Amino acid sequence: MRTYLDCIPCVMQQALRAGRMATSDEAKLKLILEKTGALIKTISMETIPAATGAKVYHIVSEITGVKDPYKEIKQQHIRETKAIYPELERIVANADDKLLTAIKIAIAGNIIDLGVNKAFDIVTDVKTILSQDFGIFDYPAFKKQLDQSKNVLYIGDNVGESVFDKILIKALKKPVKYAVRAIPIINDVTWQDAVASGIDQVATIVDSGCKSPGVIPEESSPAFGELFDTADLVISKGQGNFEGLSGCNRQVFFLLKAKCSIIAHHLGVKEGAIILKEHIYKEA
Amino acid sequence: MRTYLDCIPCVMQQALRAGRMATSDEAKLKLILEKTGALIKTISMETIPAATGAKVYHIVSEITGVKDPYKEIKQQHIRETKAIYPELERIVANADDKLLTAIKIAIAGNIIDLGVNKAFDIVTDVKTILSQDFGIFDYPAFKKQLDQSKNVLYIGDNVGESVFDKILIKALKKPVKYAVRAIPIINDVTWQDAVASGIDQVATIVDSGCKSPGVIPEESSPAFGELFDTADLVISKGQGNFEGLSGCNRQVFFLLKAKCSIIAHHLGVKEGAIILKEHIYKEA
Repeated sequence: MRTYLDCIPCVMQQALRAGRMATSDEAKLKLILEKTGALIKTISMETIPAATGAKVYHIVSEITGVKDPYKEIKQQHIRETKAIYPELERIVANADDKLLTAIKIAIAGNIIDLGVNKAFDIVTDVKTILSQDFGIFDYPAFKKQLDQSKNVLYIGDNVGESVFDKILIKALKKPVKYAVRAIPIINDVTWQDAVASGIDQVATIVDSGCKSPGVIPEESSPAFGELFDTADLVISKGQGNFEGLSGCNRQVFFLLKAKCSIIAHHLGVKEGAIILKEHIYKEA
Repeated sequence: MRTYLDCIPCVMQQALRAGRMATSDEAKLKLILEKTGALIKTISMETIPAATGAKVYHIVSEITGVKDPYKEIKQQHIRETKAIYPELERIVANADDKLLTAIKIAIAGNIIDLGVNKAFDIVTDVKTILSQDFGIFDYPAFKKQLDQSKNVLYIGDNVGESVFDKILIKALKKPVKYAVRAIPIINDVTWQDAVASGIDQVATIVDSGCKSPGVIPEESSPAFGELFDTADLVISKGQGNFEGLSGCNRQVFFLLKAKCSIIAHHLGVKEGAIILKEHIYKEA
């Protein structure tokens, strides 16, 4: 997905929010905003927004000296989501359509995204999403592809959400490789976070090689590229990965909540809609 | 009022919104955002936010060649507010406290502010504000000062709101000078707009000399400075004028709706609160 004009003021808000996670020093926060402001002229409108997110995050680290400003909040999110994990498992066990319920729970986990400025309350939002209709619902295609697949590549998004991903991974009943970011970037899931979330108990964790808050094919490692190209089924979680992969040259199933008006408009849905979208590669 | 960190992303949003009033050319809008982004390093945190607004507006004019992007929307607001003017006069005529009702209507007019990103509906909001309690209510002090005053300086804010100001000016029953911006800036009231709003029928229009979306004492003309220093009663409308005059060295009564979280926090009220605040000069 390209950059839209409205993404640019949003980048400034993200810079301030990320900066505040690392410092309360007003002079440093002002400098972060100055550097982010100066960055705008280098952002092409063809840039994937998540790539800009990576640059902003680098500015924050450089100015504050803090490499992982979301460290504590990520740990907190893992604690909080693990506390409700047994309840999530019970919900799936009692559901008529266990796979669909697990998908909805995995999307509910996508609420935990500090890169987008909305308040959240885990339990309330899980319940809301369980009763919510999809804005895009390519579930039949998903089930068909899953049935035919011998293996799954599952591209993780945020920490905390990663605990919810475990529910869906179990419901898939296939060997799963779970891709993580190469370094801490916003609250995105790294190898360490995936282990702390218990993903290693249900999947093989793989490093995407990506340093952006979203997998961008050109930036990923050759090993991940090979996996991405050859996996029978690819599941991509969240907005950042959607931004990076929405133009990719293979089938991908996107699971996300359209948390900003720009993504919602791009997808042709209302803001806040939950999405299970089959991306099909069309040759130009 | 100084600049807060949160004002900076908001400046970017204002740049985009003002730019879109003037052009739909994405390349020009991107350039407006680039120039505004580059401007951030020149903004001291001691700057009055409205002064930054003036710079952003200058960028928009420079890049688009449009000197008055809000021209049509201002005319539309004058037409719409004039259409409900007789209804506003009836409301005041039937009120127990005519002055207070006129004050509330004048504040309701402050909703019409395209510099702040909220949807509005005139009639609905007038009715809401008429039944709303004040966040700050220095009405006794205001009445006392009005009674003692032989003349009033009334500092206008937005076009359309200017039609509502006419209601309050009539209710004051004193000779009023109505101060306007020196040039078109966002949707702020200029001499021409004040005349089109019918202000010339109830007050003497004066030019503040200010080119910012808010009167800033240091930028105003000597003639306005003289008026400001010597007027018996000064009424200042809206956020922009509050930003410019909240630290001034005389008594001022501020009438506004706290439309953004920063102003609300600064005033110690909830966002959306309506304000009648007496500013008293305290020597350092």
